[in-house]
Amino acid sequence: MSSSKPNAFAGTPEPPYYAVIFTTQRTEVDDGYGAMSDRMVELASQQPGFLGVESVRDASGFGITVSYWASQEAIAVWSAHAQHRIAQETGRSKWYAHFETRVARVERVSAGP
Amino acid sequence: MSSSKPNAFAGTPEPPYYAVIFTTQRTEVDDGYGAMSDRMVELASQQPGFLGVESVRDASGFGITVSYWASQEAIAVWSAHAQHRIAQETGRSKWYAHFETRVARVERVSAGP
Repeated sequence: MSSSKPNAFAGTPEPPYYAVIFTTQRTEVDDGYGAMSDRMVELASQQPGFLGVESVRDASGFGITVSYWASQEAIAVWSAHAQHRIAQETGRSKWYAHFETRVARVERVSAGP
Repeated sequence: MSSSKPNAFAGTPEPPYYAVIFTTQRTEVDDGYGAMSDRMVELASQQPGFLGVESVRDASGFGITVSYWASQEAIAVWSAHAQHRIAQETGRSKWYAHFETRVARVERVSAGP
């Protein structure tokens, strides 16, 4: 890791660990989205096995959020968390025109410059 | 896959396959970045084993690009491609203040709404 690494980057340990790649297209509906999104990052970061998160959304509403986890079990526990379930349901019904969630096992990492 | 899936989403097959999660912070140096970035996406998409790409950058210059590949071998061949090597070197020297590259094996996918 570079000492100049900005805060937007996740400080993950040596692989292997897991990534949840959450690709989303937002609707134009706000209705509490920002607060819920912030709350979910805060809550996720308190879960056992959470390693970090990186998130970007552009002006068109297309976004990629990658969260990093120690194990598939940690991901399963977070997926089933009651407050997260409510956010997921509201995401489906209001906030996301489309999303894809991919769970992947990180096998190697490099960094630069 | 939803029939309303926007074009920004990659149309990947059933897992397993591989993801390269490329997280970057741009410098303020342009110097051909846009043209090179477009060229690399075009060239990557012509490589054997390329499955798709999703990419977002926000106004602060922080970005996540995830490319999807059929195998680790396909990723290795693309990493070693001569034109890609030149882009990588210029990225290190000019375009990226910091980057992280993670290679991960996608194990499961869900989509919505």
